[in-house]
Amino acid sequence: MIQLFADAPAGRPKPAAYLLAAYAAWFPAASVFICVVDPGVGSARRGLIAEADGRLYVGPDNGLFELVLRRAARASCWEIGWRPTALSASFHGRDLFAPVAGRLARGEMPAAMASRALPRGYPDWPDDLPEIVYIDHYGNALTGLRGQCLPATARLAAGGHSIAHADTFAAVPPGDTFWYVNSNGLVEIAVNAGRADRMLGLAVASPIEILA
Amino acid sequence: MIQLFADAPAGRPKPAAYLLAAYAAWFPAASVFICVVDPGVGSARRGLIAEADGRLYVGPDNGLFELVLRRAARASCWEIGWRPTALSASFHGRDLFAPVAGRLARGEMPAAMASRALPRGYPDWPDDLPEIVYIDHYGNALTGLRGQCLPATARLAAGGHSIAHADTFAAVPPGDTFWYVNSNGLVEIAVNAGRADRMLGLAVASPIEILA
Amino acid sequence: MIQLFADAPAGRPKPAAYLLAAYAAWFPAASVFICVVDPGVGSARRGLIAEADGRLYVGPDNGLFELVLRRAARASCWEIGWRPTALSASFHGRDLFAPVAGRLARGEMPAAMASRALPRGYPDWPDDLPEIVYIDHYGNALTGLRGQCLPATARLAAGGHSIAHADTFAAVPPGDTFWYVNSNGLVEIAVNAGRADRMLGLAVASPIEILA
Repeated sequence: MIQLFADAPAGRPKPAAYLLAAYAAWFPAASVFICVVDPGVGSARRGLIAEADGRLYVGPDNGLFELVLRRAARASCWEIGWRPTALSASFHGRDLFAPVAGRLARGEMPAAMASRALPRGYPDWPDDLPEIVYIDHYGNALTGLRGQCLPATARLAAGGHSIAHADTFAAVPPGDTFWYVNSNGLVEIAVNAGRADRMLGLAVASPIEILA
Repeated sequence: MIQLFADAPAGRPKPAAYLLAAYAAWFPAASVFICVVDPGVGSARRGLIAEADGRLYVGPDNGLFELVLRRAARASCWEIGWRPTALSASFHGRDLFAPVAGRLARGEMPAAMASRALPRGYPDWPDDLPEIVYIDHYGNALTGLRGQCLPATARLAAGGHSIAHADTFAAVPPGDTFWYVNSNGLVEIAVNAGRADRMLGLAVASPIEILA
Repeated sequence: MIQLFADAPAGRPKPAAYLLAAYAAWFPAASVFICVVDPGVGSARRGLIAEADGRLYVGPDNGLFELVLRRAARASCWEIGWRPTALSASFHGRDLFAPVAGRLARGEMPAAMASRALPRGYPDWPDDLPEIVYIDHYGNALTGLRGQCLPATARLAAGGHSIAHADTFAAVPPGDTFWYVNSNGLVEIAVNAGRADRMLGLAVASPIEILA
């Protein structure tokens, strides 16, 4: 059991979806992900099991799985029909998704607790998102852009600054801002020995512009 | 092993006691809880083992177990007499309570390391506490009131606001404040897609008034 | 597996080195520590395995192990030559140090993945560091001074205050500042029922003066 994020973008499935797609790609087939960014909990929104390239995802039908499904060579989706004896109105992560994920991790088939369904689609979401999707513990600002989108010669505009590429932190002087392709393949804006979020005024959903 | 709270109310056994009683109720008999909200560590305050409805609790004699004991159908209490070879003056959670909890979890009897005793009593603490006892990661403000105290028609006054009930976040517009019975049975004050602590100026120990 | 610090001093190997030496001393021989305070990741800095009094350490050659090595009765050091198939430029903790630590924990010898080498030396770092090396969750300010450096009659100057010794929190009135030897043997500055960092304006690297 690994806790990938203790602080995924609160109440924001869209940035979380780009983050999930980038991070899940490093896990082996048959990994099960419980994904809980769930502002609609307790409403009529459905619960889903998604299978994408052999990995399994459990969570709300709110776009969280849009990018893992879109990028997968093989994908299937089920609506969770099973219900626990006690289902709170505000914590389906604990009451519904965790038991379903546990059963999947033990080898049960999705069809034992869910029926085939199409997820809600988000066709207007781009393949790569030119926005900040996460601020990490150090103040680095992750974007929803995969590194393959950008040549190393590209500059980014964010928070009123124009930002050039560097390979890693130690390649620029302390205090300098740069962008690089992080260890999960996402374009990330950082400051050597500093906090990019504070220096550039960045937060989740802040827009990024590619200057070419 | 589960870490129930990494950030229980610092140095405040009273709100922590209401939080513990609400959360522990979901655990099976024979669960062992190490409870460390211990501002008196290193003073003459005693260390206790409490048994309440089959669950075991280890921690300081400062009121932390007042509510689990008061609400239990069957309860016993022991003062810990065992001492480790090295006992620091400031971290009995590590040096004293953790080894005792480990021995209990392996099946040893309380009497092997402790002798029967009455805990210090806090008769002036109410059965339900009309105060904020915890602010969670999202800024939701948990009270020490159990949901069964309040009809859904009740309004709460907190931070100068009058707050109505809703079933869950998605039942009110973004930015609206409401109270609901959370997934552990406590009355919680929240803002849909916002932070109740900042919007209402709430912190641990802030008083709540029930308006009828 | 234990996570000793989720928030070691960001990008600062020097205070982290004093913290590591104090905390590691409590672990049994054959313990393996992955140490990742690594501002030079991706540069030419080397990766090391250090063995000190039977404990094993894996991390960058940037001073992190200076104090554990200096204080050890027996010490050896190796430069990591092994490389993973995929090595990111910015997260050697995951790609390089974690797999090496895993192999050591399974009983492989350092020589299987590394060759004997001398670590970079930091002879100008003192044996005990009169600076704040860590602010904990409660706002207590840990110094790089071991308790044995100071008689209980000593006063410390920090943040413009003169601070006397007490044995533990409960020995002083709420709101009072004191220093004590914490449960890991380091001199720590604290406020009973308050935050020393805010009351005294302390942060990692703030200097401490011993007033005698």
